[in-house]
Amino acid sequence: MLIVQKYGGTSVGTVERIRAVARRCLATQRRGHDVVVIVSAMSGETNRLLGLAKQIAALPDERELDVIASTGEQVTVGLMALAIHAEGGQAVSLLGHQVRILTDSAFARARIQDIDARAITSALQAGKIAVIAGFQGVDKDGNITTLGRGGSDTSAVAVAAALKAEACEIYTDVDGVYTADPNVVRSARKVDRISYEEMLELASLGAKVLQIRSVEFGMKYGVPIHVRSSFNDNEGTWVVPEEKDMESVVVAGVTATRDEAKVTLPGIPDKPGIQAQVFKPLAAAGIVVDVIVQAHIQNGRTNLTFTIPSADVPRAREVLSKSCSDILPADQIKTEENLSKVSVVGVGMRSHAGVALKMFEIFAQEGIHIHLISTSEIKISCVIDAKYAELAVRSLHDGFELGKA
Amino acid sequence: MLIVQKYGGTSVGTVERIRAVARRCLATQRRGHDVVVIVSAMSGETNRLLGLAKQIAALPDERELDVIASTGEQVTVGLMALAIHAEGGQAVSLLGHQVRILTDSAFARARIQDIDARAITSALQAGKIAVIAGFQGVDKDGNITTLGRGGSDTSAVAVAAALKAEACEIYTDVDGVYTADPNVVRSARKVDRISYEEMLELASLGAKVLQIRSVEFGMKYGVPIHVRSSFNDNEGTWVVPEEKDMESVVVAGVTATRDEAKVTLPGIPDKPGIQAQVFKPLAAAGIVVDVIVQAHIQNGRTNLTFTIPSADVPRAREVLSKSCSDILPADQIKTEENLSKVSVVGVGMRSHAGVALKMFEIFAQEGIHIHLISTSEIKISCVIDAKYAELAVRSLHDGFELGKA
Repeated sequence: MLIVQKYGGTSVGTVERIRAVARRCLATQRRGHDVVVIVSAMSGETNRLLGLAKQIAALPDERELDVIASTGEQVTVGLMALAIHAEGGQAVSLLGHQVRILTDSAFARARIQDIDARAITSALQAGKIAVIAGFQGVDKDGNITTLGRGGSDTSAVAVAAALKAEACEIYTDVDGVYTADPNVVRSARKVDRISYEEMLELASLGAKVLQIRSVEFGMKYGVPIHVRSSFNDNEGTWVVPEEKDMESVVVAGVTATRDEAKVTLPGIPDKPGIQAQVFKPLAAAGIVVDVIVQAHIQNGRTNLTFTIPSADVPRAREVLSKSCSDILPADQIKTEENLSKVSVVGVGMRSHAGVALKMFEIFAQEGIHIHLISTSEIKISCVIDAKYAELAVRSLHDGFELGKA
Repeated sequence: MLIVQKYGGTSVGTVERIRAVARRCLATQRRGHDVVVIVSAMSGETNRLLGLAKQIAALPDERELDVIASTGEQVTVGLMALAIHAEGGQAVSLLGHQVRILTDSAFARARIQDIDARAITSALQAGKIAVIAGFQGVDKDGNITTLGRGGSDTSAVAVAAALKAEACEIYTDVDGVYTADPNVVRSARKVDRISYEEMLELASLGAKVLQIRSVEFGMKYGVPIHVRSSFNDNEGTWVVPEEKDMESVVVAGVTATRDEAKVTLPGIPDKPGIQAQVFKPLAAAGIVVDVIVQAHIQNGRTNLTFTIPSADVPRAREVLSKSCSDILPADQIKTEENLSKVSVVGVGMRSHAGVALKMFEIFAQEGIHIHLISTSEIKISCVIDAKYAELAVRSLHDGFELGKA
C-alpha cells in the first residue's frame, strides 16, 4: 500500500534531522509500503531567499521570486535522496517540472491543475522512494511556479490523490491539531479526529498546521490526512470526512490569525457596480480579501471596509489609488494594521444556537473592541486589535470549555 | 549586435554587486546591443551546498549532487532579473532546462550537446535581457546536470556560439590573463591577446581564469572571448585565433596546478592491454588522468605512474583495487599527494629550441626535484612537490623574462 509522507521545514531543518527522516521513510518502506516523500525547504531557507530578493526590489516580480524560492525545496530533495542512499536505501529526487506538477501561471500562489503519476510510479516500481519537492510546480510554458506559503502540504495531498494513496501523513513539529495554540493556551488539547470542514476553517483562520488548499484537496478526493510529529511515533490528528459524533462538540477549536489589515474606503458612491470596481483589480493583483463589511451612510454614500493581509497593504494602496481615482482621492484610503482575526470553529454550531452571543459576551467581559464580524455555518470570526489576540483566545477556550475532553 | 556577458561568483557575490552587474548589462544594451547574461552562483554558495551534501554522504550520488548544486545559479538568475527590473530594464531568467541546454548524462561533469536558441531569441526580440543560469543543463530524460567547476564559462561561450554572438565577455575579479599568478609573482604582466591554443594549455594547467571546455568551444566556433574585470572598464585579455606576431614570444605564461596526486602501480606485468586494464575503469569512473609515465624495470615487469586530482584518490584506489586485483594486491597501489604541476606555455616554442633544457636548469639551480615530465608542442610541464610551486613559478617567470613587455 502506498503512503505519502510530507515533512515540513523544521523536520528537515538540519542534516541530522534529514537523516532521521530518511530512517523513518525506510522504516515505513520495510513495513511493506511504497513510500513517496514530499519535503519543504530547510527551516529559515525560504525566508533567507525571499530576504535576498527583497533587498533588490521592494515589489519583486513574482515569476522571478518563484525561480528563487523554489530552490529551497530543490536542495532538500537532493539531500534527502542522498540521506536515504546513506542509510542503505534507494531513492530518486523529482522536482516539480520533472514529476510534472502542472499548475496555472499565478506565480507565488499557483494552483495545481494536474499531476502526472508516471515518473513517481516508475520510481516506486524500481523499489525506490520517490522524493518530491513540495511547494513547486511548473506551468504549461515551463515556467517555475510556487503554491504559496505551506504549499508543500498541498503538494503532498495532491500527489496522494493522484496516486490514490492509502493516507497522506503530514509530519510537523507539533503532535497534531489542538483546540487552540498550546503556546497561548496552556489547557489546549490535541484533537484525535476532525472533519475536513472544520480543518478547512481552522487552516484558513491561521492554525498553521495545514495549508488550506491541502485540506480542500483531501476533502475533494477523500484522502485521509494524518497530521503528526516527526519527533515521535505518537498518533496525531486524523483529518477525515465528517462523522456523526463530531456534532456533539459545539466548538472544536479557537484560532487567531496575525498580520491582518483593515482597509476603509469612506463615503464612496453607493451605486451598482461599485464593489466590482473595488475588488476586481485587487483580485487581479492576487490580493486576497477576507472579511467585507459595507454600511450605508447618507446622501447616496457608503463606507466600504474589508481586511487583507498586512503584507499586501502597499500593493493594495497602489492598486486602489488607480482603480478608484474617480470615486476617492488616494489619500482618503484608510488602512489600519496590527489587527487579528479570532475565530471559534465547530460543525456542532449548525445544531446549537447562541454561540455567537456567547462569544460577544466573552469579548465584552474582557473589554475587547470588535472591529468587524464575519460568520459561516461552522465558524464565527471577530477582527480585533492584535494586542488582545492571546487574551481573546484564552478567554474563548475557557468559556467554551475546550480544555475538557 | 549581440553580446554575451558572463559574471562569475565574485562578481555576483553580494546584492550590491548584483545591482552593479545589472547596471553594466543595461549600459551595454543602451549602446545598442542585444544582451545575454550568464551568471554563476554567488561566491561561496556552491561550496556551502556541496558541504551540506558531504555532511550526509562521503561519496554522494552525482545525480543528486547536481540537483543540489544547480540551485546556486538558479538563485542568482532570479536575483539578477529582479535587479535589472529594479534598474528600469526588462529581463527574464532562464534555467538550463528552460533554455534548453541539452547535455549528456555525465552528472557533475556533463558536456553540452546542443543549445536551443529559441527561448533566448524570443526574449531578446521582446527587448529583454536574457539572464541564463550558467553551469547547468538538462539531459534527454529531463535530469538536471552540471558542467563541472567553472562550467559557467562554458555555458557562456556555448550560448555565444549558438547565437553567433559578436563576442563573449567573461567578467571576473581579475583584469585578464597574466603571465603568471600576480599573487605569486609580483612582476606578472597582463597579456593583451592570447591564442586559443595557449589559453587552452593555461586553462588546463590551472590558470583559473577560464574553464578549459569554454576555450575549446571558443576555438571550435570562432567566438572571440574577452576576459575582463567586473570592477572596472579596462580592456582585459582577448582570447582569439593565433596571430603571426604571437610566435615572437617564446613563453606566454607560467602556471601551476594544485592538488595533484601521483599514483604508482609498481612491478605490474609488461604485457599488451595492461594500460587499458588500468585506465578504462578510471575513465568509466570519470577520473581524469593527466601525466602518464611508464618505465620498464625487468623480468617482464613495469612501473606505471600517473597523476590524478587529489580529490579523486579515494575513488581511484577503490576502482583500481577491483580492476587490478589480478595483477597487483590493493595494498601495493602507491599514492602520493601534495604535488603541483608547473608549466610554461607558448606558441613560440614550436620554432624555438632549448625551452625544456632551460626549465630543467632553472629547477636544478633551485634544488627542486622533478617527479614527472610531460610535454606538448606548446607546453612543458613538470610535476614537483607542492611546497616548491611558488618558488618554481617565480624562478621560471624571471628566467624566461616574462615581466618585460
